[in-house]
Amino acid sequence: MTPSRSFLSDNASGAHPAILEAIAQANTGHAGAYGADPWTAALADRIHEHFGPRTRAFPVFNGTGANVAAIASATHPHQAVICAAGAHLDVDECGAPEHIAGVKLLTVAGDHGKLTPALLEEGVDWTRVGDEHASQPALLSISNATEVGTIYTAAETAALADFAHSRNLLLHIDGARLANAAARLETSLAGLTSDAGADIVSFGGTKNGLLMGEAVIFLREELAAGFDFVRKQTTQLASKMRFISVQLDTLLADGLWLDNAHQANAMADRLAGALTAVEGIELAHPVEANGVFPRMPGHLISELEFDAEGNRAFHIWDPRDRVARFMCSWDTTPEDVDAFAARLDEGARRAFSSRA
Amino acid sequence: MTPSRSFLSDNASGAHPAILEAIAQANTGHAGAYGADPWTAALADRIHEHFGPRTRAFPVFNGTGANVAAIASATHPHQAVICAAGAHLDVDECGAPEHIAGVKLLTVAGDHGKLTPALLEEGVDWTRVGDEHASQPALLSISNATEVGTIYTAAETAALADFAHSRNLLLHIDGARLANAAARLETSLAGLTSDAGADIVSFGGTKNGLLMGEAVIFLREELAAGFDFVRKQTTQLASKMRFISVQLDTLLADGLWLDNAHQANAMADRLAGALTAVEGIELAHPVEANGVFPRMPGHLISELEFDAEGNRAFHIWDPRDRVARFMCSWDTTPEDVDAFAARLDEGARRAFSSRA
Amino acid sequence: MTPSRSFLSDNASGAHPAILEAIAQANTGHAGAYGADPWTAALADRIHEHFGPRTRAFPVFNGTGANVAAIASATHPHQAVICAAGAHLDVDECGAPEHIAGVKLLTVAGDHGKLTPALLEEGVDWTRVGDEHASQPALLSISNATEVGTIYTAAETAALADFAHSRNLLLHIDGARLANAAARLETSLAGLTSDAGADIVSFGGTKNGLLMGEAVIFLREELAAGFDFVRKQTTQLASKMRFISVQLDTLLADGLWLDNAHQANAMADRLAGALTAVEGIELAHPVEANGVFPRMPGHLISELEFDAEGNRAFHIWDPRDRVARFMCSWDTTPEDVDAFAARLDEGARRAFSSRA
Amino acid sequence: MTPSRSFLSDNASGAHPAILEAIAQANTGHAGAYGADPWTAALADRIHEHFGPRTRAFPVFNGTGANVAAIASATHPHQAVICAAGAHLDVDECGAPEHIAGVKLLTVAGDHGKLTPALLEEGVDWTRVGDEHASQPALLSISNATEVGTIYTAAETAALADFAHSRNLLLHIDGARLANAAARLETSLAGLTSDAGADIVSFGGTKNGLLMGEAVIFLREELAAGFDFVRKQTTQLASKMRFISVQLDTLLADGLWLDNAHQANAMADRLAGALTAVEGIELAHPVEANGVFPRMPGHLISELEFDAEGNRAFHIWDPRDRVARFMCSWDTTPEDVDAFAARLDEGARRAFSSRA
Repeated sequence: MTPSRSFLSDNASGAHPAILEAIAQANTGHAGAYGADPWTAALADRIHEHFGPRTRAFPVFNGTGANVAAIASATHPHQAVICAAGAHLDVDECGAPEHIAGVKLLTVAGDHGKLTPALLEEGVDWTRVGDEHASQPALLSISNATEVGTIYTAAETAALADFAHSRNLLLHIDGARLANAAARLETSLAGLTSDAGADIVSFGGTKNGLLMGEAVIFLREELAAGFDFVRKQTTQLASKMRFISVQLDTLLADGLWLDNAHQANAMADRLAGALTAVEGIELAHPVEANGVFPRMPGHLISELEFDAEGNRAFHIWDPRDRVARFMCSWDTTPEDVDAFAARLDEGARRAFSSRA
Repeated sequence: MTPSRSFLSDNASGAHPAILEAIAQANTGHAGAYGADPWTAALADRIHEHFGPRTRAFPVFNGTGANVAAIASATHPHQAVICAAGAHLDVDECGAPEHIAGVKLLTVAGDHGKLTPALLEEGVDWTRVGDEHASQPALLSISNATEVGTIYTAAETAALADFAHSRNLLLHIDGARLANAAARLETSLAGLTSDAGADIVSFGGTKNGLLMGEAVIFLREELAAGFDFVRKQTTQLASKMRFISVQLDTLLADGLWLDNAHQANAMADRLAGALTAVEGIELAHPVEANGVFPRMPGHLISELEFDAEGNRAFHIWDPRDRVARFMCSWDTTPEDVDAFAARLDEGARRAFSSRA
Repeated sequence: MTPSRSFLSDNASGAHPAILEAIAQANTGHAGAYGADPWTAALADRIHEHFGPRTRAFPVFNGTGANVAAIASATHPHQAVICAAGAHLDVDECGAPEHIAGVKLLTVAGDHGKLTPALLEEGVDWTRVGDEHASQPALLSISNATEVGTIYTAAETAALADFAHSRNLLLHIDGARLANAAARLETSLAGLTSDAGADIVSFGGTKNGLLMGEAVIFLREELAAGFDFVRKQTTQLASKMRFISVQLDTLLADGLWLDNAHQANAMADRLAGALTAVEGIELAHPVEANGVFPRMPGHLISELEFDAEGNRAFHIWDPRDRVARFMCSWDTTPEDVDAFAARLDEGARRAFSSRA
Repeated sequence: MTPSRSFLSDNASGAHPAILEAIAQANTGHAGAYGADPWTAALADRIHEHFGPRTRAFPVFNGTGANVAAIASATHPHQAVICAAGAHLDVDECGAPEHIAGVKLLTVAGDHGKLTPALLEEGVDWTRVGDEHASQPALLSISNATEVGTIYTAAETAALADFAHSRNLLLHIDGARLANAAARLETSLAGLTSDAGADIVSFGGTKNGLLMGEAVIFLREELAAGFDFVRKQTTQLASKMRFISVQLDTLLADGLWLDNAHQANAMADRLAGALTAVEGIELAHPVEANGVFPRMPGHLISELEFDAEGNRAFHIWDPRDRVARFMCSWDTTPEDVDAFAARLDEGARRAFSSRA
């Protein structure tokens, strides 16, 4: 079987070989469970190196878990989390934040999935602060990169952190694709987080080449008080934690995180080039990370949706608006892109000739 | 560094080499996320083979997650889960069942951690059924093997299933160490679960040689309705699920689960032999799975608690009663046991001569 | 002290004298607690009379409690409740539905706070039904009357019930002001609920002349299964329930509910007439129940906001859009309205002359 | 109909006439909703008078609500509340603390329902403090009077407060019957609460002569931060709050609380005297408040369980141990007691002669 290749999701890729090697190396004898092991200790140092010395990181299994545990730790149930309309938190967690943290989500629409202080000023009813009938905003959560492949610069993040703090909110970054944002901006991870004034990060590894593994990172250690218990109670405490820690440590050790993210971003650029070269295709959102969101003629969507083996080649993001989503992964190759580009050209030509 | 070896926990061991190999083999190209992959499909068949054709299995990350998601799916918040006093569910989940499923736990004490219909009849106030002021029992959860290393036979399980059903309860089995029970009893997994009338199993893999991975198994498929959503909302849905599924499938494919469990059990027997050969040591609980719980003279506990490298060698289970806990793992060797036995003999001799 | 009179809220009024008399009459000797009393039994019959023979009613303390308990009973945490943008449920319960029922609210904007099948068809992403990453719609909740004083006819309700059922949703009516809607439409309570196909009603008494008291009414008795427990667990079970039941029974016995609602509605009409007679004032929403929402010149709002004694006379609903909210109550009199109208005229004249 | 009289529950009684009068007097015109009214302001002063100047009181509907909101405010879900085995909190709230506050309850058995520092020292596994797998004790909740009619003195309460604070716990008092304890001890309410070092009180009114109404009282105002929101979110915010506040204020104004509690206590004494005069009846618990718990011959229970009209006369507390529960209320009269005593004597005589 030729393994299928697609642009369906950056979760469709597997793990980078270096990650499997690292796991194998950590698979020696016994180690303390629940994080009392040398690999988890090493990860703590590695996180300090990348996010700053005052940070504390907690490995968890997945992104939902990272987000939910972070929110549960930083809020009370009568409080609200503000996020962008369409944020993963709001539309792709099956209500986990509401159920587990007990909070309400307040959504604010923004261009290309991005929030700004001005949008927040306008989009949240701040007159309700102090009103016992209304959930009280306590946390601002942004995704960097966003769900639609756009990114926040360090300056934009800092402006949001300032805004959040001026309203007594903490700033949380859903960083399932933080590496892609940092790679694009040629910024350090601290530059987009601690240095910009953010408070908590869900740092993603799964989409960037791990088997599985994320970390909740508190950027000021005092915010981490009690989080050991929250992680356990929200079911995110791994017993053989060394196997998550060593993945994250390997990812961050010698630039693997950056190489993987660069590769995915570069492939998104290449794919965007191929798509926009076709008449009638335009980008619904700028390509700033590893996703491409073209608005396409319906016939092209239909024609290209499944590859020759019948595997879905990409995700239909907004059927009404004919927007598709192509995600590039750390393992996406120029050949993958070019093969799709060839199918695309052929489809476009056929369409042209049928019209002619 | 010589990797440390201990009897501290069956989570202290790593993964079986065959598990890492299987992961490497599954690490080829792209696959559908969230279980839409061939390895998860294969696991479904494998689970049918071992647990019966009407079962539905859902891979999850860890045991807390398996238990909590199972309970959340099978109960309403105004209901109660009955379990043994000292059950992992009650004392080692940091209140996750209460917080996430919203239920109350009702505990019943039993000899060696085991429940019986008679104990349940007596230990639960059944007069409260139908009383709106009291949480209503809806689920009986037993652990097989138990927290103290004892096991339920198929007949004992069937009696509990009958009792549960006669009270309109479902029977859930926390099977973090189900393999050890089945190995000891030379019973199939179905024999201890489906065939015995149980309804839901948390089937453990992590303690039996996986990197990480468990499964919630509904033994009658109609019980699984809605569980997709519950798994997601309780943060237990893995994106690259193939890497959990392939571990579980490999464990169950060619008897690896049984070999691993047999080994751990046999080492527990060997260790129990060494311990009880020492005057003044007796077993607090029968050795039926992979744990040994000796009641020991205080000076021996002090002397043996840490090994030569300063690593903790075992867990002190009940300091007041001087009961220690030794867990054997799939990778525990006769040499490990004998090395400890040598330390034990030396300690005992020294004690004897100092008294003489 | 002259008791203050205002249009601030229909919670600002007290209880109808007949209600206090009824309480006094029920205050004789002992009665079974938690509803095992003759007044609660009588209420059951009374509810059958008004809502139909297959209904089951549960007295509760307040509207938040009624809504939250109803939702908790009718949903699972992984499900969603659809309601109008701006619904009390969404913006005035401090996140109680999310925290206590665990659900997500999905809001749909509608003209004058009203939903229609077409709006629901368009405003909810039905493609997510069956997608484990998304909260699954299970309940449609409408308010009749709405938060902005508009009402649903029986036919409109029936259309929504049909829509809901076609999507496998239940229809819940937040009827904190259901009496006002029925009074305006000259419809029975059953006409707007059971007969229209609704499933659950939060029936309000507090705003219509009670001290306090609401009822969760299941319009098909099978929906009430387990609700005794849910009411208790959500803290809404009154021990001396007779004192809530007798209020509700008295309200419904001889048309008091209708007289009170008619009075409040009529005063809203009278007030609307006075307001719209002033140049520059227009109604932001049609006056269909007991609330009036005028868009007013800023100077008039400032001038009239507080009465001579410094009491707030009405609520500023939307400061940006200069919309005020005037609520009439069962005890609002023509004199109350006319007194305000006089202040209004004076304010308007002054404004005119200052411009002249 | 002669109103039935029983010893079934202190919730079976109605409201004191002075309470209804006070409600009628507060029922004049309009008042601010949600506590912005003069009666609620007056209550704040009254509470200061009785509980001390640094206290903050929040009227709520019922005892379950008071307890649950207090706990939700004072804990995080990963924490635990310690209470006596058999506490109302544990066995009579249908799991509301677990579901709504998310916490685990840890129960400790004590003689006659009372806890002591020594029992707590022994009965809670304090070695789990700091262990992420275990719910962390954060609140000690005692009931004064207890469920079995015993009371804590000021000194006993102070000892528990000291113990609690030494363990970094807050001390909560479930004071559904605090008046009965204070009356018996001839202590002020502050003496049993603030002065003894307690932190939060659920102060009961319903059982002591109100229609309905309790208050959550924070004995140090800084503990009340955020409670407005918690009260709302837990569905315990009354819109026409004046009608709860005026009841509580009236209860506390001129010693009505004390008179009512004295009466109930005195009737319990009288009844205990009548019961223990009968051979074969002994008290299972000392009579210190308004409840009497006799252990009685089975035939007497059967004979007396229902009165001539077929109404249940008392509650069977523990059928296996033949312990009944008789609750006296603020309105229990000597005649009520003597009438029962007469039935009792007759029953005992009949039994004696049948044996003779």
